[in-house]
Amino acid sequence: MDEETLLYELVAEYLQQKNFSKLRELMANEYPADLAQLFTEFQEKDVLLLYRLLPKELASDTFSYMDSDMQENLINGFSDKELREVLDQTFIDDTVDMIEEMPANVVNRILRNCDPQSRNAINQILKYPEDSAGTLMTIEYVNLSKELTVSEAISRIRKVGPNKETIYTCYVTEARKLIGIVSVKDLLIANDDELISDIMETNLIFVNSHEDREVVAHQFQKYDILALPVVDAEERLVGIITFDDAMDVIQEENTEDFSKMAAMTPSDDSYFKTGVFAQVKNRIFWLLVLMLTSAITGIIINQFEKTIEAIPILVSFMPMLTGTGGNCSSQSSALIIRGLALDEIKTGDVLKVLWKEFRIALVISTILASVNGLRILIFYQNPILALVLTISIVATVILSKLIGGLLPIAAKKIHLDPAVMAGPLVTTIVDTCATLLYFVIAIQFFDI
Amino acid sequence: MDEETLLYELVAEYLQQKNFSKLRELMANEYPADLAQLFTEFQEKDVLLLYRLLPKELASDTFSYMDSDMQENLINGFSDKELREVLDQTFIDDTVDMIEEMPANVVNRILRNCDPQSRNAINQILKYPEDSAGTLMTIEYVNLSKELTVSEAISRIRKVGPNKETIYTCYVTEARKLIGIVSVKDLLIANDDELISDIMETNLIFVNSHEDREVVAHQFQKYDILALPVVDAEERLVGIITFDDAMDVIQEENTEDFSKMAAMTPSDDSYFKTGVFAQVKNRIFWLLVLMLTSAITGIIINQFEKTIEAIPILVSFMPMLTGTGGNCSSQSSALIIRGLALDEIKTGDVLKVLWKEFRIALVISTILASVNGLRILIFYQNPILALVLTISIVATVILSKLIGGLLPIAAKKIHLDPAVMAGPLVTTIVDTCATLLYFVIAIQFFDI
Repeated sequence: MDEETLLYELVAEYLQQKNFSKLRELMANEYPADLAQLFTEFQEKDVLLLYRLLPKELASDTFSYMDSDMQENLINGFSDKELREVLDQTFIDDTVDMIEEMPANVVNRILRNCDPQSRNAINQILKYPEDSAGTLMTIEYVNLSKELTVSEAISRIRKVGPNKETIYTCYVTEARKLIGIVSVKDLLIANDDELISDIMETNLIFVNSHEDREVVAHQFQKYDILALPVVDAEERLVGIITFDDAMDVIQEENTEDFSKMAAMTPSDDSYFKTGVFAQVKNRIFWLLVLMLTSAITGIIINQFEKTIEAIPILVSFMPMLTGTGGNCSSQSSALIIRGLALDEIKTGDVLKVLWKEFRIALVISTILASVNGLRILIFYQNPILALVLTISIVATVILSKLIGGLLPIAAKKIHLDPAVMAGPLVTTIVDTCATLLYFVIAIQFFDI
Repeated sequence: MDEETLLYELVAEYLQQKNFSKLRELMANEYPADLAQLFTEFQEKDVLLLYRLLPKELASDTFSYMDSDMQENLINGFSDKELREVLDQTFIDDTVDMIEEMPANVVNRILRNCDPQSRNAINQILKYPEDSAGTLMTIEYVNLSKELTVSEAISRIRKVGPNKETIYTCYVTEARKLIGIVSVKDLLIANDDELISDIMETNLIFVNSHEDREVVAHQFQKYDILALPVVDAEERLVGIITFDDAMDVIQEENTEDFSKMAAMTPSDDSYFKTGVFAQVKNRIFWLLVLMLTSAITGIIINQFEKTIEAIPILVSFMPMLTGTGGNCSSQSSALIIRGLALDEIKTGDVLKVLWKEFRIALVISTILASVNGLRILIFYQNPILALVLTISIVATVILSKLIGGLLPIAAKKIHLDPAVMAGPLVTTIVDTCATLLYFVIAIQFFDI
């Protein structure tokens, strides 16, 4: 058994025995993240009981690692006093995350039990547009004034530090405007009597509170920073975003891309937490659009009914041809979408991409067409059929790679999300084109 | 023009005027990451010239943000003295990253110009298996002994800090074994005369040097840590991994999944840096496998030649049917692969997943089959054809969602990468199954 399972077994055992002192002792040494995960294995009423056995600080830390359903259940079981204790220990950004997922009555109870200053801050943050930098930030940062000496600054950090989410980057403000940053490393290395204004970094990386969270993630990745200051339109410091939230954004953005690339509307919740009908809602739109689009391929096939009646064997190569075309375009579009997301490819690179895809397609189609041509010559002994398929594969592969390379860039150019131009959509488009190409090529060679 | 373009224009202008003092002044205020990006716009000889105009510290910081091609070009232009200066300022993990991408002669020159201690460390790190925690780590951490007082520890950090990659987490060791960690925040909050042994955290999160880098990424995401200690088999501290490298690992792992899910061998390099033949090599294997697999669908179609001759209209619905099946399975497999990657779905959940996919498929197939049935009744006025397609769609959608849900979990169970069981592969399998189902259903209803 792994450590996780062992812990679960032991806690379940003591819980049944109602051996609370053992439970208290056992859980006090665990990490908040591990406890939050452990609790998912227990029933609601047991979670409340276990939670109440935790030392106060560990309890509130564990609380911030829970998913919103468990938080809601706990809050419903909490007395107002317990709720206040948790909220006092929770950083503003975590409280905001929590509130965004809760029903109105729970939100009201949370806001009623916050201290007035936090309540104001939370209400401000809730007003920022969805997925903006403002919604990710916290107001618990250390600010310094530029007139302080290094030793005064260190004293200030020692005093206010315990309640701040990060102390390692401190922000120098003047009339609320951000004018510099100082890291604790800089402070420790500097002499005690140097002035903050002399050691602060004034070439600043910051983000506007209305900027999209993608920009936030990008700044963290580019500059390897621990925290990013958030400013308003007048460049006044309104909060900071810490690296752990940036990491979450990176993963959520990736999850969104995975969903979109498989022709789904992204869901904020995990697989099991998204109900059957929510899943249907996320999946049905593209399935309907693509199903109706593929009817066009059916119409094309109808136009060639005579050809099919004359040479029925043609039909049996259709899946191979459209399948290969679909796979080729999926490969190209996936690479281009990822390259665009990581900023390695710009929309201006479109001709460079098409030229590269064209050369790749030439090599690939030569290999695929040769293998396939050989197979047909051996099994069907029909050179004309082999020739038709060879030409069709070359044409299909080139077309597919170009479509797969072009569409994501075109989408970005007109401010659509490139991730939509992935596998399912390009495959459907390529299906239609490949089928048309195939029959047009076939009637050139067969005497019908 | 944006800031980036403006900077480029100005630098290009001054470079042409050979106005080196202006260039020096201009670049001295930029961030290393921005300079590294700026340099990609210039030719090799100009980069060396621009680089030499940077103040020493900024130069070596910029160097560590460059891609390996640019680093190699610079090293080839460097004197041994210049190379030594850069290496002195570069952290071991960045030097290792660099060495891993260089040709042997450059590697030899780098090692020859390192100080003996760094050379030893680099050679040790290079021995770790590919993609292991050992290859990500650096040895520039702060270690403390448990007998120190807080003020002694702070003095030590002030002394050794400038040369360490992070000072914010310090590691307490005893006979080289890791026995605790202390954060600078803890130190600043504690009283000056407290002992490290009294304030250190002894419940440790660490990773073995041979562990896969995926585990590293997972630990960072779960525990929101700034640095992760790396230990050897005897639990001796051998290095630390910092959060910025963990972020890079997360992005690289995601990129790998995107590639695999589009049926490609992942590439370490970006799109443009991977040459045409390397791209072909990454793409051709799955294209060949899938092309030959789809020949099975062709064989099935051949078996039903009589049916097709009798009712040729059947053929025109094949693309719609296989397309819908492919899209349904792509959706399911993408969600399951992502859920497995984020640890939200375990292999033990297989029945729960299949039951959920089955219910989703029931709802989705009802909607799709109704829309399609109606379309056929209106345009073709053929109730039997409508019935055959209705049943075929329901059967195909259910089968596709089950295959898409099952295969990634099955892959994980037998220790294959679930990401391979995505769009292209499941689509090809579903194509074959859907075609067989369709004709079997059709011959039940049509009198052939």
